[in-house]
Amino acid sequence: MGTTRLESVPEPKYWQLKSVLTQALDSEFSVGEVLPNERDLAARFGVARATLRQALEQLELEGRLQRRRGVGTTVAPPRMGVAVGSERDAWPSAADDAWQLSGCTVATAPGAVADLLQTDREESLHVVRRSRMTHGQPVAAELLYVPDASVPDLPVIGTAAEAARARSVLRELQRLDLEGQSRTVELGSAGAEDAKELDRLPGAPVLVVTTRYHADGLTAAVSVATYRADTCRLAFGASGGVEIHHGPERRAS
Amino acid sequence: MGTTRLESVPEPKYWQLKSVLTQALDSEFSVGEVLPNERDLAARFGVARATLRQALEQLELEGRLQRRRGVGTTVAPPRMGVAVGSERDAWPSAADDAWQLSGCTVATAPGAVADLLQTDREESLHVVRRSRMTHGQPVAAELLYVPDASVPDLPVIGTAAEAARARSVLRELQRLDLEGQSRTVELGSAGAEDAKELDRLPGAPVLVVTTRYHADGLTAAVSVATYRADTCRLAFGASGGVEIHHGPERRAS
Repeated sequence: MGTTRLESVPEPKYWQLKSVLTQALDSEFSVGEVLPNERDLAARFGVARATLRQALEQLELEGRLQRRRGVGTTVAPPRMGVAVGSERDAWPSAADDAWQLSGCTVATAPGAVADLLQTDREESLHVVRRSRMTHGQPVAAELLYVPDASVPDLPVIGTAAEAARARSVLRELQRLDLEGQSRTVELGSAGAEDAKELDRLPGAPVLVVTTRYHADGLTAAVSVATYRADTCRLAFGASGGVEIHHGPERRAS
Repeated sequence: MGTTRLESVPEPKYWQLKSVLTQALDSEFSVGEVLPNERDLAARFGVARATLRQALEQLELEGRLQRRRGVGTTVAPPRMGVAVGSERDAWPSAADDAWQLSGCTVATAPGAVADLLQTDREESLHVVRRSRMTHGQPVAAELLYVPDASVPDLPVIGTAAEAARARSVLRELQRLDLEGQSRTVELGSAGAEDAKELDRLPGAPVLVVTTRYHADGLTAAVSVATYRADTCRLAFGASGGVEIHHGPERRAS
């Protein structure tokens, strides 16, 4: 970004520092390496600590640095591409699903979710909790909200273990005729429980993916999944089944 | 998020305050209203200024508050749903396109873009700059990178005005047979020029949407669009052309 016509825009000091730091990260540091402390870095680049901190915050937002308590600031590995909605026409918990069940409760939904489901805000719903790992790291935590009306034949499972309840809800959902999905992505902050599952502090920036599952002309279920914004790049599949070249070969130019 | 089993997770003080503030925003304040100053708010809720500030930052991340220099902290309007990739099988600048051309230069691409295009990092490309407005507000700034190899018959337009150059590049691109698009979404920070177009300060959080346009088995062009993370919710279309009910009617339950 911003490689063109930069001369026409005055850049703040920390932004210039960020560019210099980016080059240093590319050339001098390897992934996982701990950066020198703030005082030494500020001295090396001849800037105030406040300026340095702003630049480090930008690099953290962009996924180049990670700051962890007790470890310090380390060079982040490249973000992981995490496929979203590749099971385009499948209900949650399809065979090739990347998610693991972690619980199921009966609770009310946040107002925005109730509105999407067109249920009363006071109505209790089945809330299935799932989590997703990629390369051994937690990348997403999900709450799937399912109204009673979508699973009318759900067996009475009041005393069953949570995992069994979750499986029952998903099985009943799969009996509906899925007509499609729609999806939004926005910035959010991790709630306490999500943060715990994602191995982050509460309030950490997350990408919130809200998926509506459509059946019988209604929204039959809503999933709210929070993805770690520091480590994830959400990938939406190619349309038309195009095969994408990932190899090292160069195009003729 | 986090409405279930909250009792099992200890919540930090600012997180509790955030919940209280959210309720106050819902019940006592209207969109655009300026909040009391930090000292008064901290006193009202009986918390330290630092705690208050953390809670306000969370609410800003979640799009509930806006902080603007010279204005103070105001209650944000709901985020705008901005359709991404609704022109699924169209080249940039299709007839119903939401984008406006703002320039065209010849420049090198960032390393990551060059890698997607499988061009040399030193190769100069056509860089078309576009911007997108929704409800009179700037929501996105885009750079579209087009290698010479994708537009071999581009007329010589060295001295033409930028807008004319941009139109020529897009017209040539549309002569290729588009096979599909693939897309990633990740968190980033606004560069100086993007920030200016988006009416934000440099470093503001943005959602970066990278789109690869596939033709002839290659990536023929790459678009890097930065969307304002504070005001935008990116909407990805329903698959299968489902008609979605938006009306106020309630489902039977």
